[in-house]
Amino acid sequence: MEQLQYQEGRTEISQLGKVALIDRLTEGTACQGDDCAVLGDGPLKTLVTTQTLVEGVDFDMMYTPLKHLGYKAMAIAISNIAAMNGTPRQALVSIAVSNRYSVEALDELYAGLHLCCDRYDVQLVGGETATSRAGMVLTVTAVGEVDATMVTYRRGASHNDLICCSGDLGSAYAGLLVLEREKVTYQADPNFQPDLDGYDYVLERFLKPEPRMDIVRSLRKAGVVPTSMTDVSRGLADALLHLTRASKCGCEVYEERLPIDYQVTRVCSEMSKNMLPVSCALNGGEDYELLFTVSQKDYEKIKTLEGIHIIGYVTEEGMPPVMVTPQNTTITLRAQGFQGVEE
Amino acid sequence: MEQLQYQEGRTEISQLGKVALIDRLTEGTACQGDDCAVLGDGPLKTLVTTQTLVEGVDFDMMYTPLKHLGYKAMAIAISNIAAMNGTPRQALVSIAVSNRYSVEALDELYAGLHLCCDRYDVQLVGGETATSRAGMVLTVTAVGEVDATMVTYRRGASHNDLICCSGDLGSAYAGLLVLEREKVTYQADPNFQPDLDGYDYVLERFLKPEPRMDIVRSLRKAGVVPTSMTDVSRGLADALLHLTRASKCGCEVYEERLPIDYQVTRVCSEMSKNMLPVSCALNGGEDYELLFTVSQKDYEKIKTLEGIHIIGYVTEEGMPPVMVTPQNTTITLRAQGFQGVEE
Repeated sequence: MEQLQYQEGRTEISQLGKVALIDRLTEGTACQGDDCAVLGDGPLKTLVTTQTLVEGVDFDMMYTPLKHLGYKAMAIAISNIAAMNGTPRQALVSIAVSNRYSVEALDELYAGLHLCCDRYDVQLVGGETATSRAGMVLTVTAVGEVDATMVTYRRGASHNDLICCSGDLGSAYAGLLVLEREKVTYQADPNFQPDLDGYDYVLERFLKPEPRMDIVRSLRKAGVVPTSMTDVSRGLADALLHLTRASKCGCEVYEERLPIDYQVTRVCSEMSKNMLPVSCALNGGEDYELLFTVSQKDYEKIKTLEGIHIIGYVTEEGMPPVMVTPQNTTITLRAQGFQGVEE
Repeated sequence: MEQLQYQEGRTEISQLGKVALIDRLTEGTACQGDDCAVLGDGPLKTLVTTQTLVEGVDFDMMYTPLKHLGYKAMAIAISNIAAMNGTPRQALVSIAVSNRYSVEALDELYAGLHLCCDRYDVQLVGGETATSRAGMVLTVTAVGEVDATMVTYRRGASHNDLICCSGDLGSAYAGLLVLEREKVTYQADPNFQPDLDGYDYVLERFLKPEPRMDIVRSLRKAGVVPTSMTDVSRGLADALLHLTRASKCGCEVYEERLPIDYQVTRVCSEMSKNMLPVSCALNGGEDYELLFTVSQKDYEKIKTLEGIHIIGYVTEEGMPPVMVTPQNTTITLRAQGFQGVEE
């Protein structure tokens, strides 16, 4: 029999970083690093994406109602279809659970999955359950479709394209901060009643995100096909780095243009003097908004669309991705993205 | 905010059983309980399947080389495509790993995934890596295609159809028994050198199964479309129960017709007087052979095909699924399937 898995060398995953690791593992394959795999040779492309959430890493059972978890897992998968300018059609769900979960708990989880499927007109067509020794692992595979002429990759941005994002940024992270704060207080004193009044917007953004299919539809209606697109799952900085790296370009975004809700500002001011709302937007993650670029010629079509913000423009190859502050300072963007609830 | 997940009632998953649980969770959806979801309205159907393997449940790192694990995970997903009479085309891989794994370890895992993809002409088109707090979770999504006229479901078997299986049964479970035995001895004495000579066939069957695409091709060449099909992943009894339940029929299989390798007999005789090779075949699992039914009119076409065994026939609705022993005793088949390495 072959020898077991121990290797001569040992490189830690953290030394390499996640992007370099995926590059290394998928070298020489058709993996493009987009939000979905794009299949088919015909005029209609099939999109497939798979998303795994692990208990204790991607979600914390202390403050994640199972119905919300089901909704969110499906929403994340659908968001990947939206990020390719596609329409979601079907989904498969695999769960691995330990016997800590009751049948009623799984009913709740599925109620959330079904609710999200119904809202986005997705058919749940398959899946399986497996046994986990510890905690829950939830995998959602979503299948969608898109006209071959309409599919948007990360790699299509060109010099001078406008950079746009939907909705607002940093809210989901602010919601997570509130939940983590209340959890710590509750753990210190189990009689403590969490007070979540006035945080409902940021909590909802964290616990029950919505994939921006409305933005996909309004771009179609306006006759705009973005030159590149991705969803903002690990913060704006990470999304911009992926887009500019894939498109071989730089970018310049303006801090004062970033859409940030007032509840994010409130949460930041409560947490620490050093916590800035713009950091939540850049590095927070889990917003599931769309980040995309459009050609300058589409400016007239896009400028009045609701829920879309023009935050900057694409610079030449070789230029770094930067943010310009209101004081006109230029800050080079780096990946510091959100790595799960533990960090 | 909504209340957290605690329910009034509590039903244990084990009370309900896995099949009833999946039925309950997917009630009212398009889930058919087949090996793949079948998508598309055109003449060519798309098949999608997702398979999750959890460390400590579905595999034990003590005796699972990572390259084998990668190969096996891909093979299982491809086997689901084979079970629908399809051709695999693409795959996506998601892994969640803790920092216990090095980059080199993941290289090994991917080497196995790639090897299996190459052998079965599958393109690795996407995937993601996530963080796991404990152990590894590996999800493979496979996409395939099949002519709408050729797709085989579990539900198509009719009275008097012949029941066939490919290869042999029980070998993978015999391989697992050997590995578990050597593990126990090794744990008692770390200087012990496992002796695996003479078990190579059953070990290979457990550690590196092959999806039976060769059988799919030889059936096509012979012009036979099975009336129903599934793969044997949790033992023959479980597969027959799924097939007869979906097809609303009974079945009769003959013990002496079951293909069982001599190494299975050898392992059983070493383990215990009470361990019967036929139990490995019925309840062992992980063989990934194909179980299918064909119309009697296809008997001439099928009888000489290599690697295919006719093991019984389909009985009427209302009849139980049974096995007839050489002594002409009739045993009703029950699901006692393999639930992972812990059982």
